[in-house]
Amino acid sequence: MAEYSIGLDLGGTNLRAAAIDRSGTILDKVSGSTKFSAGREAVIADMVQAISQVRDQHGPSGLAGIGIGVPGFIQLKEGIVLNSNNLPFLEDYPIRDEMQRRLGTVVILENDANAAALGEKWMGAGREVDDLVLLTLGTGIGGGIISGGRVLRGFAGMAGELGHITVAPNGNPCGCGNQGCVEKHASATAVTAMARMLHLGDEVTSKDLDRMAQRDDEAGHKAREIWRVMGESLGITLAMLINTFNFPLYLLSGGMLPAWEFFAPAMLRTVEQRSATYRLTHGATRIEQATLGNEAGLYGAAYLPWVEKEKQGG
Amino acid sequence: MAEYSIGLDLGGTNLRAAAIDRSGTILDKVSGSTKFSAGREAVIADMVQAISQVRDQHGPSGLAGIGIGVPGFIQLKEGIVLNSNNLPFLEDYPIRDEMQRRLGTVVILENDANAAALGEKWMGAGREVDDLVLLTLGTGIGGGIISGGRVLRGFAGMAGELGHITVAPNGNPCGCGNQGCVEKHASATAVTAMARMLHLGDEVTSKDLDRMAQRDDEAGHKAREIWRVMGESLGITLAMLINTFNFPLYLLSGGMLPAWEFFAPAMLRTVEQRSATYRLTHGATRIEQATLGNEAGLYGAAYLPWVEKEKQGG
Repeated sequence: MAEYSIGLDLGGTNLRAAAIDRSGTILDKVSGSTKFSAGREAVIADMVQAISQVRDQHGPSGLAGIGIGVPGFIQLKEGIVLNSNNLPFLEDYPIRDEMQRRLGTVVILENDANAAALGEKWMGAGREVDDLVLLTLGTGIGGGIISGGRVLRGFAGMAGELGHITVAPNGNPCGCGNQGCVEKHASATAVTAMARMLHLGDEVTSKDLDRMAQRDDEAGHKAREIWRVMGESLGITLAMLINTFNFPLYLLSGGMLPAWEFFAPAMLRTVEQRSATYRLTHGATRIEQATLGNEAGLYGAAYLPWVEKEKQGG
Repeated sequence: MAEYSIGLDLGGTNLRAAAIDRSGTILDKVSGSTKFSAGREAVIADMVQAISQVRDQHGPSGLAGIGIGVPGFIQLKEGIVLNSNNLPFLEDYPIRDEMQRRLGTVVILENDANAAALGEKWMGAGREVDDLVLLTLGTGIGGGIISGGRVLRGFAGMAGELGHITVAPNGNPCGCGNQGCVEKHASATAVTAMARMLHLGDEVTSKDLDRMAQRDDEAGHKAREIWRVMGESLGITLAMLINTFNFPLYLLSGGMLPAWEFFAPAMLRTVEQRSATYRLTHGATRIEQATLGNEAGLYGAAYLPWVEKEKQGG
């Protein structure tokens, strides 16, 4: 039987697991069924259930390993999530060890955005480079850095917290303690907050704002202005990342990508203005849309065991 | 004869070369004698002269290689300096190839701050880690990133332009095209500009400001306020770097270090407030003074050939 790996992506509201072979073909995919409001024990049981189901299907002999992507600040050595706005019930709990105990095998834990970046490197928009940065634009903003083909993890496993890059030192307060984090100025939460302030409606979503921006009226004008401001915040962040890394590729993913036509012009103009490195590399620095969508985290989680093996020369 | 390497550090106003052995002992050190105002040909002749003098002294047989650190945005593959505020006469000139031609041997070019970071990793404050970031606080602010024991160069060789991280999106305009670069808010040039604005004198240097801050009068109060603001700008920058890299060590070097007691408290307070990663690592993230001073660039330049050899498994 051909070698395969199992990836599990724990999102903010649901979980999915997949068996993927070495060539990147998804052999099988299952979704969890538990509401996260049911709490930790229910979600862990659901994670174990999803992984077990896939493993039973494909047998233990070809299994290269199991990778799990979870949101939050991860303490890698200890295998615990320290801070997670989305899944507070996982905080300070030895999730990796508990999963290993229940599954009876090694599990690799990774931050969800790091896993998504690795997925894009393996099978997505980053296939042809070894170095890239991914920003995931959702209710928050996550970041993943791939350096030399591997996740840049930092000594505690917390590298890539790019949603907390400061774009406005006196800007909106963030749960992380900082003010003016890009996540508070360019996430879906941020653009819908701007929409409320501009009286575009209290229940407006970022999808609504995308549709609104296509209209030729007052609301359309306001919506385009919001996307422009959002694009500038992203641009400041990207300029800083480009000046820091001089990587060839910066990817954006997440639910706000459909509004690309409205925020990208301001974003790229800001990068052009604020990053000499960008200008000096004459178009060789690319800022593009990720291509794997929701699957990026699944691919990346599944790829983790193979990266680990390569690292050990196995 | 024991193996040795030659490093040359091209500063903003002078050049120095040294022969250093594999254990980090400086065998010999010479300074250039040419005024940089004499122009490119004179400076290149002086560089060749300094290196040749050291090489003649120690013989060609033990020479591991020659490394050169220069200020500016370096295009690594081409071996040219694209942008250099300090040495405009070197811009767009094939400095590496010309040095190789005149010396008749391979020369490795590197950005000066990158070289300094590598020097600190080899023989200075970073000896015990493989991952660190260095900020050089001078008339400008330079940056060097060491990841996995090697300089993080980026695809064109321009990584680590940390002086151009934005700390105030609408702040002081910078020659790089950006506004509010940390180099415009926390360099020696920036603090002396603040001193002029606060009527502390038109010829005040950062050293004067350090002395002034120790006084218990109106000028002392203003000087301490300047260092506090400068420390906050550095703190915003460091918080971003810590959130991005989660490295164990961040070093500061340069002519403003003597004022550490005046800017460090505000800097550390800002980092503590703005970086959840810093807080979550409970003191394991260190922000410290570099220890090699002016010699860091020399050490790093000399170490370059050995790093290259290790990379090639030689």
